[in-house]
Amino acid sequence: MGINTKREKIPGRDAITRSPFPNSRKIYVRGKLHPIEVAMREIEVGSSAPGFGDSGSPQPNSSITVYDTSGPYTDPAKEIDVHEGLEPLRSGWILGRGDVEELPEFSSGFARASAGKSGVLAIKFRNIRKPLRAKPGANVTQMHYARNGIITPEMEYIAIRENQRIDELRESLGELGKYHPGESFGARIPRTHITPEFVRDEVACGRAIIPSNINHPESEPMIIGRNFLVKINANIGNSAVTSSIEEEVEKAVWACRWGADTIMDLSTGKNIHETREWIMRNSPVPVGTVPIYQALEKVDGKAEELTWEIFRDTLIEQAEQGVDYFTIHAGVLLGYIHLTADRVTGIVSRGGSIMAKWCLAHHKESFLYTNFEEICEIMKAYDIAFSLGDGLRPGSIADANDRAQFAELKTIGELTEVAWRHDVQVMIEGPGHVPMHMIKENMDKQLEWCGEAPFYTLGPLTTDIAPGYDHITSAIGAAMIGWYGTAMLCYVTPKEHLGLPNRTDVKEGVITYKIAAHAADLAKGHPAAQVRDNALSKARFEFRWNDQFNLSLDPDTAREFHDETLPAEGAKVAHFCSMCGPKFCSMKITQEVRDYAKAKGLTESDAVKSGMEQKSKEFASAGGKIYVPVGE
Amino acid sequence: MGINTKREKIPGRDAITRSPFPNSRKIYVRGKLHPIEVAMREIEVGSSAPGFGDSGSPQPNSSITVYDTSGPYTDPAKEIDVHEGLEPLRSGWILGRGDVEELPEFSSGFARASAGKSGVLAIKFRNIRKPLRAKPGANVTQMHYARNGIITPEMEYIAIRENQRIDELRESLGELGKYHPGESFGARIPRTHITPEFVRDEVACGRAIIPSNINHPESEPMIIGRNFLVKINANIGNSAVTSSIEEEVEKAVWACRWGADTIMDLSTGKNIHETREWIMRNSPVPVGTVPIYQALEKVDGKAEELTWEIFRDTLIEQAEQGVDYFTIHAGVLLGYIHLTADRVTGIVSRGGSIMAKWCLAHHKESFLYTNFEEICEIMKAYDIAFSLGDGLRPGSIADANDRAQFAELKTIGELTEVAWRHDVQVMIEGPGHVPMHMIKENMDKQLEWCGEAPFYTLGPLTTDIAPGYDHITSAIGAAMIGWYGTAMLCYVTPKEHLGLPNRTDVKEGVITYKIAAHAADLAKGHPAAQVRDNALSKARFEFRWNDQFNLSLDPDTAREFHDETLPAEGAKVAHFCSMCGPKFCSMKITQEVRDYAKAKGLTESDAVKSGMEQKSKEFASAGGKIYVPVGE
Repeated sequence: MGINTKREKIPGRDAITRSPFPNSRKIYVRGKLHPIEVAMREIEVGSSAPGFGDSGSPQPNSSITVYDTSGPYTDPAKEIDVHEGLEPLRSGWILGRGDVEELPEFSSGFARASAGKSGVLAIKFRNIRKPLRAKPGANVTQMHYARNGIITPEMEYIAIRENQRIDELRESLGELGKYHPGESFGARIPRTHITPEFVRDEVACGRAIIPSNINHPESEPMIIGRNFLVKINANIGNSAVTSSIEEEVEKAVWACRWGADTIMDLSTGKNIHETREWIMRNSPVPVGTVPIYQALEKVDGKAEELTWEIFRDTLIEQAEQGVDYFTIHAGVLLGYIHLTADRVTGIVSRGGSIMAKWCLAHHKESFLYTNFEEICEIMKAYDIAFSLGDGLRPGSIADANDRAQFAELKTIGELTEVAWRHDVQVMIEGPGHVPMHMIKENMDKQLEWCGEAPFYTLGPLTTDIAPGYDHITSAIGAAMIGWYGTAMLCYVTPKEHLGLPNRTDVKEGVITYKIAAHAADLAKGHPAAQVRDNALSKARFEFRWNDQFNLSLDPDTAREFHDETLPAEGAKVAHFCSMCGPKFCSMKITQEVRDYAKAKGLTESDAVKSGMEQKSKEFASAGGKIYVPVGE
Repeated sequence: MGINTKREKIPGRDAITRSPFPNSRKIYVRGKLHPIEVAMREIEVGSSAPGFGDSGSPQPNSSITVYDTSGPYTDPAKEIDVHEGLEPLRSGWILGRGDVEELPEFSSGFARASAGKSGVLAIKFRNIRKPLRAKPGANVTQMHYARNGIITPEMEYIAIRENQRIDELRESLGELGKYHPGESFGARIPRTHITPEFVRDEVACGRAIIPSNINHPESEPMIIGRNFLVKINANIGNSAVTSSIEEEVEKAVWACRWGADTIMDLSTGKNIHETREWIMRNSPVPVGTVPIYQALEKVDGKAEELTWEIFRDTLIEQAEQGVDYFTIHAGVLLGYIHLTADRVTGIVSRGGSIMAKWCLAHHKESFLYTNFEEICEIMKAYDIAFSLGDGLRPGSIADANDRAQFAELKTIGELTEVAWRHDVQVMIEGPGHVPMHMIKENMDKQLEWCGEAPFYTLGPLTTDIAPGYDHITSAIGAAMIGWYGTAMLCYVTPKEHLGLPNRTDVKEGVITYKIAAHAADLAKGHPAAQVRDNALSKARFEFRWNDQFNLSLDPDTAREFHDETLPAEGAKVAHFCSMCGPKFCSMKITQEVRDYAKAKGLTESDAVKSGMEQKSKEFASAGGKIYVPVGE
């Protein structure tokens, strides 16, 4: 078969990219309610050359602050050693609430066995500590706090982070041109800025979640909800066929660098526990998993041998490692399986197909469903969010929006209510493969049936015919469903359907999904979204090439593409690029048009206007009659 | 400045990729009204292995016929020499109508001067011939024929081509699963197949155009209109900074190979006439240009020195070379220029900015506008279609849908009516940079103001922040506006805003736009669109890896990505890939689920159904009460 044999490899200390982004620095904005420091990235922007704008002298431009998922890695002032793990940012907040207790040892039998292992996998992280759990009777979820009127440090952190300093900067950015209010389809996105109280309220009513396991204090708080910035998730993790721990940790940090708001570790090969430990201790963003994958490994891949006990132990094992959200396919009911029989692509969710096999083999209802209440008890003891998995999502255009898919979605809606009775945070996973005209129905039904719990979709892919380009087929669907109200988009890489993504694919997938998410933020009208577009476009118009690169989602690629034909440093201020050459640059000619007006003794804008208004009237009075030469 | 100096190079005879697509053959479908042979690509599909479907033996699958823009290059039976040019497919049809005359020499003074040149640029093409022009008083446009009730060979060719044999194949493809009717926003896309009479009618009323200059007989007829497949255009052409004739001819054929329905030669450097001649004689698809570019070269880049006479001579020069459509920015009126003064990015159309400069310099109305009627006379003598350029399109999110843009669009609508009075074919160019929620307004206004003339848009880009990835930012907008009714999408490559695209960028742009166009075809419900998705998805579910590659838009990349981790030939029938590995493939497990049901003596679909229906009822009767374990 020629399968590459995998050799395990732990991360080298220099495997991680740590350089800051060009012309950017890490800033920390202080909280008002809590002693917190919210990390952001500030991009310094150069001055406009004389001649641009109304003045004859160089005009300074405001720096732009952007949402930053890269964690401490891009702060040169921080010392980081992946063998030690990140600093536990949230530890004080968690312990300060007084509702958790330190356990003497891991509760899971499997974890205890793993801990006894020796060899390269048994690295001791600096942050290795006893696992935390809620004190008996306590509920440590952010939803529980929110419903009790408490604004946690996490909530204030999020409010400040979402605003990207737009509240302070608005005035100085006023020059940047028109802001287009979005169309939000009934969402209630704040028009000016986000307050901590707004965050609390959205979490309290279940419209947003803050994935924040008390055993993952390394993560920087973030929120998933349709009244906030659209988030993206990057799947990483090895398979039995390929990749190592080193590669996966590197991919995790790399994905965050380019904009992943959460990562999911979908490892299915050997050393799942250890791979996850490495990722958790080094991840500045929340981490999700699909626990059934590891449970299946424990029964050597035989779905029918799965038991509730093995699954339950796996949940607790991962809970105490710090996983922030669990994908659980509890809506795949025995009674729905037959609905997939006539599908073109059957069941395409790994978890869904595993549970379907188990249900059929035992002719019993899914143990995820029958034990759902007990799962909630576990979730609330660590503050793990549900990501209710769509095990029956469509895997092809032909299967979109079918009975199987919607039957499961309705059940998921019922489970959401159950979880909410426990104050457990919930988001809902969505498809899949859906043609454009059938996408909105997914959003509408999800909002209706799942009580506005955040929707978290994979794409959807809008056609099946482009393997190798499914980051693009799906970005189209992702941008649209993000606009309609999806809170988080699970990325798809170019390798989807073909193989495990490597580092290059991960970056391509992340950037593509940042585009989809940002396009959605613009369309739905997030108050901080358009600032960056305007700043970049102004830089473009003024031939500030370096600013154009630095303000872009991927400065490295933008610069590299430009320099392919015009590598000289002088070309960075040239009033053209190789696309049109010097004589045909429309922006240069526009500038000449404006200069022309100015030379006639008119100031820039009114100038052209007053000069032209007369003419304009002449045309208007000529009415529908065209071909009347006007002027001399 | 470090600008690479360009060295002119004519195409080598082996510069062109000619290999057929894997497992594909060129077929020719005969006409019924005319003695025509319509080229298509047939992809042979392998059999389903025993166990898939209801039978225990291998089941053959229908071959799939797809729309093919690659021209004779992918037919190994054709001899092609780029120094001679393609065979003039349409010559007989054109001459057979008896309404054209051969001119003794080129009518344009510039062309006559060029023809006298010597050296490498003066290659004699096999198809070099005297230029054709309509006989005095004749009108040779497809619109004119259509309005006179004539179904031309071009129209029948198009009807057959659009159907992709769906009319013959529908029965044998019935097995392929559900077909989703689209949402067409008032378009009238035929539900089953396209007839020649339907083509004629759409052209007659101006809802569709057939770009088909009588001097470009090499091109295979195609149609641009919202009741047909969404088409894509690839821009090629050198700039003063980079590229050669060889590269541009290669790019042209390469773009057609991957799916470009038309190409635009936007050359702006030296040797524009010769570059175009090479492209025309070797292009199997219609070619568009922006004549003002060459006119500007003739006055050494000084916009203010342009004259109507120079422009007119350029139109005739290009008309007699065979250009199929002209972008003409006749809607940029003197009175609209001031509306761009407060924009973030001013005027971003090269043609628009040139004309704005001319208008201001002379304080006169645009000569394109004042001479529009005479331009129509030229267009109808060769059957050149207008592509009325949006010289004032927005170049940034901030400038989207502003007064300048819509003022011009309204004027363009008036010009459309004028052209139609001459039976000249017209399409309308559209933006640009537009956030998602403002896209539909563009389509709605265009349909209303321009009498449903086909819309031809550049993207639109849905955000400004991703230079280096603008094929993706724009594919999102392109897919959406294609669904809403745009007839042709002008591609954007990854190099947009940064430099001139190379061959790799051209392919990336074309494939990305094929995705957008196909997603739109699915959404609007073109009758032949979903067949390929279904065939590919069925192959995917059945682990027919080679079929999955062969049916995809880019078989080379799909195969290469797969083989990166599983290169062995045996992996092409393996029931997994490296993404999930053997134990975690949902499709494999689904198959096991189905096998399981079958082993219990039940036939596949009803089987699982009948076995499960009882259970299903039990759940239903348990009602809202969840957590009731069902079964034993």
